[in-house]
Amino acid sequence: MSKPKVFEKPSGVKDYLPEAISQLRRIERNVLQCMERWGYREILTPTLEYYDTVGVASSTEDKKLFKLLDRKGTTLVLRSDVTAPIARVVSSLLKEETLPLRLSYHANVFRAIEAEAGRDAEFFQTGVELVGDASSESDAEVIALAVAGLQAAGVKEFKMAVGHVGFLNGLFRETLADRPEAQVALKECLLGRDYVGYRETIRHLGLSQAVQSELEGILRLRGGQEICSQAREVTQDPTAQQAISHLCEVWDVLKAYGVSEHVVIDLTMIGDFSYYTGMTFEGYAADLGFPVCSGGRYDNLLSQFGRPAPATGFALKTNRILEAVSKYGTPEAPYRILIAYTAAQRQEALQAAADMRRREGVMVETRLVDEAGSFRAELQPDETYRVNGVIYQDVIEFGL
Amino acid sequence: MSKPKVFEKPSGVKDYLPEAISQLRRIERNVLQCMERWGYREILTPTLEYYDTVGVASSTEDKKLFKLLDRKGTTLVLRSDVTAPIARVVSSLLKEETLPLRLSYHANVFRAIEAEAGRDAEFFQTGVELVGDASSESDAEVIALAVAGLQAAGVKEFKMAVGHVGFLNGLFRETLADRPEAQVALKECLLGRDYVGYRETIRHLGLSQAVQSELEGILRLRGGQEICSQAREVTQDPTAQQAISHLCEVWDVLKAYGVSEHVVIDLTMIGDFSYYTGMTFEGYAADLGFPVCSGGRYDNLLSQFGRPAPATGFALKTNRILEAVSKYGTPEAPYRILIAYTAAQRQEALQAAADMRRREGVMVETRLVDEAGSFRAELQPDETYRVNGVIYQDVIEFGL
Repeated sequence: MSKPKVFEKPSGVKDYLPEAISQLRRIERNVLQCMERWGYREILTPTLEYYDTVGVASSTEDKKLFKLLDRKGTTLVLRSDVTAPIARVVSSLLKEETLPLRLSYHANVFRAIEAEAGRDAEFFQTGVELVGDASSESDAEVIALAVAGLQAAGVKEFKMAVGHVGFLNGLFRETLADRPEAQVALKECLLGRDYVGYRETIRHLGLSQAVQSELEGILRLRGGQEICSQAREVTQDPTAQQAISHLCEVWDVLKAYGVSEHVVIDLTMIGDFSYYTGMTFEGYAADLGFPVCSGGRYDNLLSQFGRPAPATGFALKTNRILEAVSKYGTPEAPYRILIAYTAAQRQEALQAAADMRRREGVMVETRLVDEAGSFRAELQPDETYRVNGVIYQDVIEFGL
Repeated sequence: MSKPKVFEKPSGVKDYLPEAISQLRRIERNVLQCMERWGYREILTPTLEYYDTVGVASSTEDKKLFKLLDRKGTTLVLRSDVTAPIARVVSSLLKEETLPLRLSYHANVFRAIEAEAGRDAEFFQTGVELVGDASSESDAEVIALAVAGLQAAGVKEFKMAVGHVGFLNGLFRETLADRPEAQVALKECLLGRDYVGYRETIRHLGLSQAVQSELEGILRLRGGQEICSQAREVTQDPTAQQAISHLCEVWDVLKAYGVSEHVVIDLTMIGDFSYYTGMTFEGYAADLGFPVCSGGRYDNLLSQFGRPAPATGFALKTNRILEAVSKYGTPEAPYRILIAYTAAQRQEALQAAADMRRREGVMVETRLVDEAGSFRAELQPDETYRVNGVIYQDVIEFGL
């Protein structure tokens, strides 16, 4: 095991330089402000949680949790999502507050294994949880807010794919009742969006032609509201039928929000997490090969913290949004001014700097200069000024 | 070892509820904006760093570092300050950028041992580093910016105590040249501001009356510019004399910044960290028993990352500032509106909500209501409205 070099950092983690940070800060600010305007109040939970409580309850696979031991030998985790910590807070610090509760967050989260696959071990999520409301109205509210959040972040073209875990659960129970391993294999294929694998798996199950067509047919169940009526014909399973009715209601509310143009119903979607219990959704930006947002209903989580309540929510994948919007260019940089002064004019120069710093969008650096000559030699006036490799929009001299 | 209860979190870490977060966010935003206007660009480094690089170089005592192992068995640390990571970035990603570099940050940092003493294991720092300038001008700049930062954060009354490690080093070398253990004991007393212990230690050293008076006399070296001339008389050691000259220059620049009223020279201050090499300072808010800011010059750190350069900076102790400003009251909460609607009026209601959310400082929640009667029974109109335990400034009904 070789010692790391002095300038190295652990694999999978990043430094964000000023340009990236100003973009990230803009996204964070605009999205949180949007969420606040919808009634969601920001909270913040610690980086470290107990493995046995929040770690186990989280939606993250055990092997992806970043674990460590505290001094007493208790296993801790670095927060892998914010949903489970919020469930803990709703059940403890906020247990006297009446439901529904609307909460938002922006936080870094950690994954242990991603680094080895060249993926981020630390990244940001910006999201909301709506706790204590089981209605289709609340599912539609979080989808509509996810749309508003992506727009606030500056994502120009995107689609929300909305599904329901009840549809596939019902369909598979009806068609593969005694074959749980086949159900798992098919769900794995759909989770990975491996439609070729899904078809092949079906063909090797030795099913009747009718059942085979039925299971293959769901791959076509993606589109607008018409998908709901098509899906009703596919299966008679009551869980699946309820799921479809629920999605129809969600669609109606999304129409009232005026956002249905951003939404497609996708009944092949089962959501990233095993703990979703109802509607699930994912957001896709144009030209980006991975989701920028994921969410859904998780009615079983809160009971693990002793305050049973239905809940729905989503997390924007802030780093992917950063990647998406960086393609459109960078936010306007501040107007950068250099004030150069001699010791004799120090007070006037520093007072002028203080005055200018009160103006919006201005960045003022100051610099004591010994001799006008050597300073001017550095100055390369152009449209802007370049001093010592840095570009300033303006250079102001005092006493030179 | 008992399993943690479901709602427990590790000791020393906190949940921040909406009121605290809105105050914390206000401080963070105002201070970072202030720093940007002074030419400091924000950067962000990862939570995890290598122990052998950043961990060892940091100013944090080894036993206070939060250590963990990665999958390859390399020791990592949770970031304990942001100064050492910034030194790493300046020496790697930013190595082509010319000096001086002005950088700012706002980040959570970790301490392993504090939890057991009832202190925070995770807390925030907001700070700057000015890298590549050894002048008294740059030391004064960061002190003046710390003053501006505390003002931007809303701290009303505070003092900056400014010292210089060269003064005590010089004085002790002159008086206790062959007694390093006595030097360490006296520095420990001063670091802990244990002036009684300092006097007692001196009296047990068996020194001449003259040297004893000289060492005791420095406890009086706190005040305005006059302290510099008094200090010149105390010791002839050239390092101490240089330190005093440097502080005089810093004072002159602080006067030009117009902030000397906030500054006291305190030659008994040696700074929290062993790695300071010159000027050090701490900020104290009225009625608060601990510093809200600490900083100083650290000219030896950058060379550990392969890019030797002088540097100066500070960190505001954001959580303590939060505590200080919370005494003045909470920031203005948004104007909270509840829109209640029937299914028939859904579209009009949601459109009205969207329109209102465009206004500044407004928070709009929406709620589908089945029957006007049961909703009105919940409503408790007062100056504001209380619905389901939550206070709204306004309730608007659609279709009820």
